[in-house]
Amino acid sequence: LIYTGEQLISPPQITLFLYDASSFMERHPATIDEAVNQIQKGKKAWLHVHGINDVLLIHTIGNRFKLHPLLLEDIMNPAQRSKLDDYKDHIYIATHLLLYKEENAGSIEDDQLSIVVGTDVLITFLDRESDALNPIIERLQKPTSKMRLRGPDYLAYAILDTIVDSYFVILEHVDHNLEVLESELLNDPKKNILLKIQKSKRALALLRKTIWPMREMINQFKRTESPLISDATRMYAADVYDHTIQAIETVDSFRDVTAGMLDIYISTINQRMNEIMKVLTIVATIFVPLTFISSVYGMNFKHMPELDSPYGYPMILGFMLLVSLGMLYFFRRKRWI
Amino acid sequence: LIYTGEQLISPPQITLFLYDASSFMERHPATIDEAVNQIQKGKKAWLHVHGINDVLLIHTIGNRFKLHPLLLEDIMNPAQRSKLDDYKDHIYIATHLLLYKEENAGSIEDDQLSIVVGTDVLITFLDRESDALNPIIERLQKPTSKMRLRGPDYLAYAILDTIVDSYFVILEHVDHNLEVLESELLNDPKKNILLKIQKSKRALALLRKTIWPMREMINQFKRTESPLISDATRMYAADVYDHTIQAIETVDSFRDVTAGMLDIYISTINQRMNEIMKVLTIVATIFVPLTFISSVYGMNFKHMPELDSPYGYPMILGFMLLVSLGMLYFFRRKRWI
Amino acid sequence: LIYTGEQLISPPQITLFLYDASSFMERHPATIDEAVNQIQKGKKAWLHVHGINDVLLIHTIGNRFKLHPLLLEDIMNPAQRSKLDDYKDHIYIATHLLLYKEENAGSIEDDQLSIVVGTDVLITFLDRESDALNPIIERLQKPTSKMRLRGPDYLAYAILDTIVDSYFVILEHVDHNLEVLESELLNDPKKNILLKIQKSKRALALLRKTIWPMREMINQFKRTESPLISDATRMYAADVYDHTIQAIETVDSFRDVTAGMLDIYISTINQRMNEIMKVLTIVATIFVPLTFISSVYGMNFKHMPELDSPYGYPMILGFMLLVSLGMLYFFRRKRWI
Amino acid sequence: LIYTGEQLISPPQITLFLYDASSFMERHPATIDEAVNQIQKGKKAWLHVHGINDVLLIHTIGNRFKLHPLLLEDIMNPAQRSKLDDYKDHIYIATHLLLYKEENAGSIEDDQLSIVVGTDVLITFLDRESDALNPIIERLQKPTSKMRLRGPDYLAYAILDTIVDSYFVILEHVDHNLEVLESELLNDPKKNILLKIQKSKRALALLRKTIWPMREMINQFKRTESPLISDATRMYAADVYDHTIQAIETVDSFRDVTAGMLDIYISTINQRMNEIMKVLTIVATIFVPLTFISSVYGMNFKHMPELDSPYGYPMILGFMLLVSLGMLYFFRRKRWI
Amino acid sequence: LIYTGEQLISPPQITLFLYDASSFMERHPATIDEAVNQIQKGKKAWLHVHGINDVLLIHTIGNRFKLHPLLLEDIMNPAQRSKLDDYKDHIYIATHLLLYKEENAGSIEDDQLSIVVGTDVLITFLDRESDALNPIIERLQKPTSKMRLRGPDYLAYAILDTIVDSYFVILEHVDHNLEVLESELLNDPKKNILLKIQKSKRALALLRKTIWPMREMINQFKRTESPLISDATRMYAADVYDHTIQAIETVDSFRDVTAGMLDIYISTINQRMNEIMKVLTIVATIFVPLTFISSVYGMNFKHMPELDSPYGYPMILGFMLLVSLGMLYFFRRKRWI
Repeated sequence: LIYTGEQLISPPQITLFLYDASSFMERHPATIDEAVNQIQKGKKAWLHVHGINDVLLIHTIGNRFKLHPLLLEDIMNPAQRSKLDDYKDHIYIATHLLLYKEENAGSIEDDQLSIVVGTDVLITFLDRESDALNPIIERLQKPTSKMRLRGPDYLAYAILDTIVDSYFVILEHVDHNLEVLESELLNDPKKNILLKIQKSKRALALLRKTIWPMREMINQFKRTESPLISDATRMYAADVYDHTIQAIETVDSFRDVTAGMLDIYISTINQRMNEIMKVLTIVATIFVPLTFISSVYGMNFKHMPELDSPYGYPMILGFMLLVSLGMLYFFRRKRWI
Repeated sequence: LIYTGEQLISPPQITLFLYDASSFMERHPATIDEAVNQIQKGKKAWLHVHGINDVLLIHTIGNRFKLHPLLLEDIMNPAQRSKLDDYKDHIYIATHLLLYKEENAGSIEDDQLSIVVGTDVLITFLDRESDALNPIIERLQKPTSKMRLRGPDYLAYAILDTIVDSYFVILEHVDHNLEVLESELLNDPKKNILLKIQKSKRALALLRKTIWPMREMINQFKRTESPLISDATRMYAADVYDHTIQAIETVDSFRDVTAGMLDIYISTINQRMNEIMKVLTIVATIFVPLTFISSVYGMNFKHMPELDSPYGYPMILGFMLLVSLGMLYFFRRKRWI
Repeated sequence: LIYTGEQLISPPQITLFLYDASSFMERHPATIDEAVNQIQKGKKAWLHVHGINDVLLIHTIGNRFKLHPLLLEDIMNPAQRSKLDDYKDHIYIATHLLLYKEENAGSIEDDQLSIVVGTDVLITFLDRESDALNPIIERLQKPTSKMRLRGPDYLAYAILDTIVDSYFVILEHVDHNLEVLESELLNDPKKNILLKIQKSKRALALLRKTIWPMREMINQFKRTESPLISDATRMYAADVYDHTIQAIETVDSFRDVTAGMLDIYISTINQRMNEIMKVLTIVATIFVPLTFISSVYGMNFKHMPELDSPYGYPMILGFMLLVSLGMLYFFRRKRWI
Repeated sequence: LIYTGEQLISPPQITLFLYDASSFMERHPATIDEAVNQIQKGKKAWLHVHGINDVLLIHTIGNRFKLHPLLLEDIMNPAQRSKLDDYKDHIYIATHLLLYKEENAGSIEDDQLSIVVGTDVLITFLDRESDALNPIIERLQKPTSKMRLRGPDYLAYAILDTIVDSYFVILEHVDHNLEVLESELLNDPKKNILLKIQKSKRALALLRKTIWPMREMINQFKRTESPLISDATRMYAADVYDHTIQAIETVDSFRDVTAGMLDIYISTINQRMNEIMKVLTIVATIFVPLTFISSVYGMNFKHMPELDSPYGYPMILGFMLLVSLGMLYFFRRKRWI
Repeated sequence: LIYTGEQLISPPQITLFLYDASSFMERHPATIDEAVNQIQKGKKAWLHVHGINDVLLIHTIGNRFKLHPLLLEDIMNPAQRSKLDDYKDHIYIATHLLLYKEENAGSIEDDQLSIVVGTDVLITFLDRESDALNPIIERLQKPTSKMRLRGPDYLAYAILDTIVDSYFVILEHVDHNLEVLESELLNDPKKNILLKIQKSKRALALLRKTIWPMREMINQFKRTESPLISDATRMYAADVYDHTIQAIETVDSFRDVTAGMLDIYISTINQRMNEIMKVLTIVATIFVPLTFISSVYGMNFKHMPELDSPYGYPMILGFMLLVSLGMLYFFRRKRWI
């Protein structure tokens, strides 16, 4: 067993929630053995491990709960694709929490959450600090909550539901960013806007890469024949499944929008070039011929009869005026001015 | 249960239609209990609820008709994907009415319609005001209507059929818009045309996002093994299914058209730039060499024999004329003029 | 029943073909009842109805041949997707004749043909005038024709085969158009070529939209378990199926060609701009510096020693020549001239 | 039966190969009946017909070997998609030989090969002259060849294998062409390169259109349950199947390369325009202001004090030098020079 | 049997590893017969052949281990698609080692590895020198390794796992290259950057072409019903399968990035052109009118009253200043400066 992620928290924190229809307890055991001893028959247990870099700890959990070595390997590799593996006695679910970092120009942080569903026990493993599971704990504390009556499979469903809902929050942020980008694009595109579009595309690619396997995983959750997941819970999972599809469709429509942005950007640049060219052309086309005319009468030939005429100067000025007006008329007809 | 949409109407309005082969009644009960009491055995009932923001009301309906909590949740979340869920005693259908807003520059409004098919009862939930169901009511009032003889499943089919037909009306509006855009594009593209194209693309994306899951949902309707949907009605659903596919194909062909528009726009801009450049080049290429020639004879050298010749001036003018004609011939050969 | 197409012919014309291995008769009954009476036991009948806007007529046919209401509805809606519906006693096939209009700049007309296959009877409904079915009638008149020995299912196959063959004729026209367009594009692209490309894309989109559902429909024809279609006929249908796939592949390769045309057009425009810019740049870059030099010696400073030298003028002309030659050498090295 | 291809050879040539483990004979019978008489029981026969435009001949073959009319029709239509049709007593395989024409600027010729697999007899039909089958004949002549021991199904496999191998030879030619094109594109793109790219795209489209249905056909060959194809031969077919997939993947990667070429071409043109513009801008931006300065001192005002100063001329020349240097510094900072 | 690759090593080197739970031996037999004699019952054997160009050797191996002729053919053709063929007594796996060549500007070398899984024996064939299998040998040497307890199927899995892991190392190199390219693109795109992008696209195409069939092959490994692969090993293969999918997704996201790069490159070039045009336009638009004005007063008309006025010169200079300021104000308003 080797831990393949960054060293984030040390030592790992263990939290144990014990609950049934009538009671709820939160414990913070120091060791896994202490946690295992606190688990009571008849009560459902949720063991949450924050920090997965302690190989020994994961190993001990594996021994105490008789988890398959591959399952332990998957827990310690924080770059898993979301998936559901059925190990008969346990169901292993790998999933990902995404965290939108407003302060960091809209980057998205990714955190793997491993869920092990057993009989009457749910074990979750999380690498980074996150408050994503707090709403679950709050609901569990309420005596009227459906969650209290149901098993760890329903708890697993509730966690997945919460995660998928959190994707929509991120999608709203992304949507807002795209709207800001689009209005900037149409009003005053700056050079770094390409970078921003590229960044949005990456964020959307990450979202897609995260949500797409979620869809498959929840589909498996919905269809699994494992007795660890009750029929009622599977029905709820169908609802989460619909939400993941909706999330994917939203991501796809946002991808279309960013693809369209680049086109708009390029045609906006082209259009600006057009305007610049028009100004240059109008100015040059008016003044270059006029300059030619005046330079003709700047020649030093001895015999240039016009130069001696007293009306030469006003006449030539008048001629120049006519030329300019003709040019302006031509541009107007071309709709350039 | 939480309502996740906007507060649109308060309090919700309840309408109850009672009908069989020989009779039709429309009632406006104040409460659900009143409505439930009015439902008569042997008659089919259609309960239409306009306004879904009243949690208590939805809850009461859930209790009276024994609806599953998930079903109630779906009713109150007005951003559902179109779907059909089979809850044995009931079939839940989420679908979407689309409303084309002419006044608002071709934007499309989306309104979720929830349909619950039970034994001898159909319940529909609608958020916004809409006259989309009026044709159904009118047909129901006619004693000769097939609808009067058949159960709520046929009524559900008729509603779905009406909705899909309304999509075609919207598609005709979109088609008209695209034709206007295209002729504008080819005759005199203005700067804001990109925005209009982008807007059309969004409208089409919304249509696709709405109609695509409709297809799946109607397919389920067609294939469901639930006894709530009769074989005869399933046959009719096959027809609606064909129409949704046609609608999707139409949306896709419109998407192709908008994609082509951008290409036309960009090449039109390029072509205009070409024209501008041609004018600039022709003018500059004729007058810049002429100006050079005249500036040569504007030099103040003491010893310039041409200046003293009486034929110098006319000869140089003639030479300039030759140069211009040569240039014009060159441009003509290049097909620039 | 409502007719949803244009009013094209009135009143509809009814033609009845009666045939078996040894005989062939063509009748033109005035009414449906007359036609039904003429049908003889032991002979196969083909009833062809030209003009589908007479609701009463369609209704009468429905009654006489016991057709399902949905089937009648489909006949009267001339914008059906091609499809095959199995109504046990009858098989309904909706398909489309396409007609290439040379005179109308290559537009394609679409005409729905409805085919109803019954036991010993085939009924066809066509809206517009068309000679597409004539080859079938001619083959039916020949005593040696296989068609005379086989039932209406083989007749239906023969009609579908003829229709698919007619698509290839249209594809050849389109191919010719594309070749003309392409050579125009490479030799002398005019402004309206974009419009022509767009038009070709639309024609191809229409072809695709028509042929694609044909493929599904013929696949159903090939695989149907209905006793109305014999095994031998299904074998022939497999052949038509291959042809539709070939037609689709041809349409797709033409679509690739048109997509490539736009790219060629844009790069041709770019290249022309390049040429224009080169001419402008060469002329300006040669004469602007020369003009500067001569304008220097056009200055009126009292003390300009060069002006008084007798060699000043020839030397400055020589210097200008050198500058021009240098520029030309530079352009040659850049491969601009 | 109608022949739909060009008249290529007349009269058709018939070759008959008779072989078993210990013997091999090549005969050139004049008629089909002669050929049929020469076929000996216990020996396997390969009848090769070169030239398919003789309707009577094909008809006779059909009669002698009891071939289905549809099969004969397919043989005489030389534009079949590759396919395998199982007619119980015979298996019909349509496939295509491709021939790369070096002399004709890399065009590819297409020739349909029809294969009929029967019990102990294989019949092949080929339209044009081709030496593609020679290696097969050579292998058949060798007494040690596996082919001699096995039936006509293995012979059919060997022919398909040879054809697919020949596609790779063509792909190598195409690969070479693309490399030449690419280096031309990067070094000195000429105007006709677009045509060459377009031509390569067409060749690749033809290859794809030919190989893609081959894949399906060989898959059917591999999976057919017909007793005419032995299990051992089906195993070998799996190998050919892998090769077709490899060929398709190669074609697809070449298509990507050509698609990329156009992008490179367009950006190369853009870049050249950039360079041209830079030269123009640098020259104009330096000399236009200088010309203005000198034209100021070419004015004929009576009272211009600078003109009388003895230092006026050198000072103004110095000023002009400063302006030019400033401009050059500006261009250097912009990285234009 | 013909060897179709390059001549790389001669003579081939044979290495034999014999191992069970308690022992491990490495031998270097000179001939295959020697190797076969050294294989001991009860011990598992891994025979590694480095160099596949010796037809006789491959033939001898085929005879000794009773391998199918097709299998031998596949071994000797080093351009196989990755695949798994089940020959009942043996399973043949073709796979590819990829080697990133830092020194050679990021090119990727491809080396086919053939794996034959038998009962208690694994035979591997490798063409080029490679240290990719060393980690496997090292793990095999450790007495505590799981590999020692399990059969050749697990060894095959371990090799596949190592290969897929090595792809990720290459993907990291590619990722780094892309980042370097992207920052170069945004800061100072040079002409050869297109070539580099094209090269990255090719590397990614090669990776995709290699990994995609791996996915299928490992899927077959996972699902095969052959008794040669144990259930436990198949479970581990599922893990490798997930990794290949991850690798493919990564390749695809990199392809998106390179596609985006070209767009950025083209719009960067466009933007640069814009800037160049702006400078040209600003300079020309200011000085061309000024030059015209001064050339007017350079005309030699006898009667030009302004020339005689003592204020003529300063006034005209002031007028020129006003014109320039007006132009600058215009440019500022257009946001060009």
